[in-house]
Amino acid sequence: MKKTTQFIEPFGVDIDLDIGAMPGAAHHLVRRASDMRGYYTDEAALERLICQGDPVHYEVFETPVPEEIGHLMYCISTLQPGRVGDEYFMTKGHYHTCIETAETYLTLRGNGYMMMKTAEGRVCWEPMCRGRMVYVPPYWAHRSINTADEPLVSFCVYPGNAGHNYGDIASEGFSKRVYLRDGQEVIV
Amino acid sequence: MKKTTQFIEPFGVDIDLDIGAMPGAAHHLVRRASDMRGYYTDEAALERLICQGDPVHYEVFETPVPEEIGHLMYCISTLQPGRVGDEYFMTKGHYHTCIETAETYLTLRGNGYMMMKTAEGRVCWEPMCRGRMVYVPPYWAHRSINTADEPLVSFCVYPGNAGHNYGDIASEGFSKRVYLRDGQEVIV
Repeated sequence: MKKTTQFIEPFGVDIDLDIGAMPGAAHHLVRRASDMRGYYTDEAALERLICQGDPVHYEVFETPVPEEIGHLMYCISTLQPGRVGDEYFMTKGHYHTCIETAETYLTLRGNGYMMMKTAEGRVCWEPMCRGRMVYVPPYWAHRSINTADEPLVSFCVYPGNAGHNYGDIASEGFSKRVYLRDGQEVIV
Repeated sequence: MKKTTQFIEPFGVDIDLDIGAMPGAAHHLVRRASDMRGYYTDEAALERLICQGDPVHYEVFETPVPEEIGHLMYCISTLQPGRVGDEYFMTKGHYHTCIETAETYLTLRGNGYMMMKTAEGRVCWEPMCRGRMVYVPPYWAHRSINTADEPLVSFCVYPGNAGHNYGDIASEGFSKRVYLRDGQEVIV
C-alpha cells in the first residue's frame, strides 16, 4: 500500500493529570513576558514586568509527530497566573495556518477563559476549568486567559497539518479582553 | 470566505477526570456481551455471559461534531472489567475508514493495553494507565483491553473524517490476545 501520510510506530507519553505536566516531552516552548510585547493594553506595565526578571509567561510541552494531515499534534499548555497592569495573563492566540482545522482543549488545572474570534469579527468565549473540554471549531482564532492564582493547564489536540498563524492577532488583537477591576473579573 | 469545512459555534462539555464520565454527552453507544459474538476465543463462555443477563461490555459517550476533515471527534470510552473465559474484556477494535488518520487515547482511569496491528501483519501494544496517552498513528487498527478490576476509561480524539471500519477485525482478529492464566496476565 502506498502511504501518503507518514507511517510511524505507536508510542505512549505520560501526563500528570493532577498537576498538569508532560515530564518526558521532547519539545518545550517557553514564552516570557518579553515575547508578549504588543499584546497587552498596558505596555508600561509589561515593560516593568520584563525589567523585574522577565518571568515565564506560558509553556508548551509536546512530543512531536509528523506535521501532516491525518496525524494529530498534542501538547500540554501551561499559562502562569498574573496580570499585566489589570489585564490577566494570556497566550498570544492564533489562527491555524490551515484555517479549516479544529482544536480540543481539555483543562486539567486552573480557571480562565478561551477567547475566540473569527476573521469576520465574531467573538465569543468559553470558561475553562478542570474537566471542561472546549471545542474550538475550524475558522476560530483562540487565546487562553488565566484568571486564577495557579497555572492554567490544558491538554490540547489538533490536526497535524493545522500550523499556527499569529500574524493578524498581533496587529488586530481580540475585541474582548479580561481585566481585574475593583476586585471583579470583567470582560470588555 | 467560502467555507469547505462546516462552520459551527464553539462549545464546551464537562468531563469528570476522576471517575471518567461525560455526563452531558448527546450520544451514548452501548455494546453488550451479545454484540461481541465472534470476537473472543471462548465462544461458550461468551454465550454463558449473555444468558446471565447480557451485561454492558463497553460504552462510548460523545457530543458529535461534523464528520468532516478539519473537525475533531472526541469521546469518553468506558470498558468494563471482566473476562470471557480467561480472556480479558476488550473492545471490538477498528481501523479508521480513512486509514490515514491517527487517534489519541488519554487514559483517565484503570489499567490495560492498547493492542494495535497493521494490515501488513505488524502487531504491537502499549500499556494504558491513568495519565498515559497512547498515540495510535495512521494505518494502525486498535483495540483496548481491560486487565484491572475497575472500568478502563479514556478520553479519545480523532479526525472528523476518520470513520470506523470493523469489517476485517471480525474476520481476522488480532494475532495477540491477553489472558489471565494461573493468576498471571499473559499476552499470547
